[in-house]
Amino acid sequence: MNPVTIGLIGLGTVGTGVARLLTEHPDRLARRAGRPFRWKWAVVRDPAKARGVALEGVQVTTDVGQLLDDPEVEVVIETMGGTDPALGYVLAALAAGKHVVTANKALLAEHGAEVFARARAAGRAVAFEGSVGGGIPIVQALGVALAANQVQSLAAIVNGTCNFILTRMTEEGLPYEEALRQAQQLGYAEADPTLDVDGTDTAHKLAILAQLAFEADVRLEVIPRQGIDRLQLADLKYAGELGYVIKLLALAKLSAAGLELRVAPTLVRRGTPLAEVRGPYNAIRVVGDAVGDTLFYGRGAGAMPTASAVIADLIDVATGRAGLPSRSRTLWSESAPPVCLTPPSQIQSRYHLRFTIADRPGVLAQLAQILGDHGISIASVIQHDPGDDAPADSPVPLVIMTHHAIQADLHAALEEIDRLGVVHAPSVCLGVED
Amino acid sequence: MNPVTIGLIGLGTVGTGVARLLTEHPDRLARRAGRPFRWKWAVVRDPAKARGVALEGVQVTTDVGQLLDDPEVEVVIETMGGTDPALGYVLAALAAGKHVVTANKALLAEHGAEVFARARAAGRAVAFEGSVGGGIPIVQALGVALAANQVQSLAAIVNGTCNFILTRMTEEGLPYEEALRQAQQLGYAEADPTLDVDGTDTAHKLAILAQLAFEADVRLEVIPRQGIDRLQLADLKYAGELGYVIKLLALAKLSAAGLELRVAPTLVRRGTPLAEVRGPYNAIRVVGDAVGDTLFYGRGAGAMPTASAVIADLIDVATGRAGLPSRSRTLWSESAPPVCLTPPSQIQSRYHLRFTIADRPGVLAQLAQILGDHGISIASVIQHDPGDDAPADSPVPLVIMTHHAIQADLHAALEEIDRLGVVHAPSVCLGVED
Repeated sequence: MNPVTIGLIGLGTVGTGVARLLTEHPDRLARRAGRPFRWKWAVVRDPAKARGVALEGVQVTTDVGQLLDDPEVEVVIETMGGTDPALGYVLAALAAGKHVVTANKALLAEHGAEVFARARAAGRAVAFEGSVGGGIPIVQALGVALAANQVQSLAAIVNGTCNFILTRMTEEGLPYEEALRQAQQLGYAEADPTLDVDGTDTAHKLAILAQLAFEADVRLEVIPRQGIDRLQLADLKYAGELGYVIKLLALAKLSAAGLELRVAPTLVRRGTPLAEVRGPYNAIRVVGDAVGDTLFYGRGAGAMPTASAVIADLIDVATGRAGLPSRSRTLWSESAPPVCLTPPSQIQSRYHLRFTIADRPGVLAQLAQILGDHGISIASVIQHDPGDDAPADSPVPLVIMTHHAIQADLHAALEEIDRLGVVHAPSVCLGVED
Repeated sequence: MNPVTIGLIGLGTVGTGVARLLTEHPDRLARRAGRPFRWKWAVVRDPAKARGVALEGVQVTTDVGQLLDDPEVEVVIETMGGTDPALGYVLAALAAGKHVVTANKALLAEHGAEVFARARAAGRAVAFEGSVGGGIPIVQALGVALAANQVQSLAAIVNGTCNFILTRMTEEGLPYEEALRQAQQLGYAEADPTLDVDGTDTAHKLAILAQLAFEADVRLEVIPRQGIDRLQLADLKYAGELGYVIKLLALAKLSAAGLELRVAPTLVRRGTPLAEVRGPYNAIRVVGDAVGDTLFYGRGAGAMPTASAVIADLIDVATGRAGLPSRSRTLWSESAPPVCLTPPSQIQSRYHLRFTIADRPGVLAQLAQILGDHGISIASVIQHDPGDDAPADSPVPLVIMTHHAIQADLHAALEEIDRLGVVHAPSVCLGVED
């Protein structure tokens, strides 16, 4: 049978994983696609560099034009990452009549509308299962398997670096810097981990999830985001005392006020499936109006898990499934009903607050009064006896868990509290996911 | 645009859920399918019975022939359950050139080969996402999203009744009969719960999962199965002391010896995602050679979760996705490579053993000797002091967790142990999932 000819752009971590599946399991893939695959081109920056994969029969080039000009190539797999030059290559591939498979979250989060407009115009498919959650088939779940549902909310752990760091902090009491160092040693964090730990990577993925679940075309800048880089061990410890762990979550919630989106370290109740996601694993909780509560769990990064998703897309393209509605037709589409984002100040949540206060009579009452004045109701409080050995005037921590409150009210209360003379450090405020 | 005309057979729990989605969200479904749906026929046993759904414009009949003879009907949705007359209806629908969507696990587990042979001959799709795991898209995950992988193992909680009962037994210390009564009161268990609690329902679903993951056409009779109906609270308690909970699992494992399949109450380590699946929820853990460890979690039964899966299939059929390879082409196919099942006696596992023994010196040594003679190595032991108040000759429990052992060796050892005069009751043996 006529093979599906492939050009692969990028032979880094994910590209090498894809190449391994193509070269090591050709019969398996052919059987499942109904057609064999022929890997013809590899576009790389340095053709001399050794790769951990057999390149027999593959033409290795630095010139993407050779691949794009080859009429035999049906599918271009882009695994180089980043938006430049990836965006140009992807658009050129579509213009040349090729289907595109990509695992590039930044490309879709920032240029999804342009990519899909071009794909529709060209009548070609763009498949991107690997862009969120690595090997977890969340793109397919939201785009196809849960299509009967209006998604009501999403809560996602989609950055393995952060989840690894938080797991080490929680379970071994390591400070952030030490947990990050371990993540780097084990290859779970880059030498420059900024985009992971500051929440940018998670926000990219949330933008894609918001498109899939709510047809919302969200610009990265409008997603409020907070990373894990300023989290203190004390917060994980007190959260633990209240029966919670802290996870970096991508959150999306549909309410009467609109669509709430945010990325933030959030308290998650122990014993719930999301709380039990440890180490570099990812998980996405999806609540739909018909299906109810679901969770999708797996490895969110790495060569082979992401390659598993890329090859699934390739098979979908080869069979024609990826080109059919509803996957390409409605994604980042101008015909999508408009989605109104809830202003961050109006987001409602329960909150975990930590204050550093003078150990003096009346301080708790003062703080509680201010919270009450702003309509914020207290669910639980932790204040430990500092013990007889503590110096007389040393500040003590006070931890408060609130009931549901509006962010604007809470921030007003915290501003007032932080101005009090009895408060020794800026208050810490984290959301709580129920 | 030309609508997709539907005939629905069965208006029970799932059928009513499907009808609700069709009638309450027509625009949503049309947008996602690219074509509107027209629900034309409902085949029911009693047309006079009140249904919780609007039937305007729907022709209600007791005669399935009317639906099958209607050339407008493109898709037949079968939600009646059971194999007779469902098998006849499904085969007739395919013969009449209609696509079939079904949530009928017994039908596929027992007659999958016949149904799919007929579907291929007729060039029509059979979609069955709702047959396993309710709203969890596990059929699509195994059939499409993980297609790059050779699945290596599956461990699945796919019976909500049993999981509800086990959760109550574990968390509230209720005996089996009382937990079952609660499940019945809450609608999680049928008046006659036999097929749920004896493992038959789980075995049906395992047969379907084995087909999807391993292309194994497994007759129900060859799956060793053990239900939860003879589980004792003592076993849940001792498992808890060792850090485990007991779940009814469908297990499939590929090894050099072949494919191991079984349904059995099994110890699962606390803190792993599978152990945290509570109440009526289902979850399927899938390990693939590329993707690694994954878990799919959600509501495994009920009107709306199952309807969510059925409508997803309907959309897949409407778009043409369900008809393409690889979903129909290779399922229950004669061209599948043969799969060799591991004889139950050769299955390897860790085991949790509970003995009821005389409280006398030397008994533990005697048992340990017999286990050792059969090559079974002990990982941990629990034997509590019965206390001074216990009658002098009352038997005491002894709990042993083994390392990996071959079932045949274990059974030989247990037979020998159960013949000892110091053993007061037949030993209890449960597998342990790592």
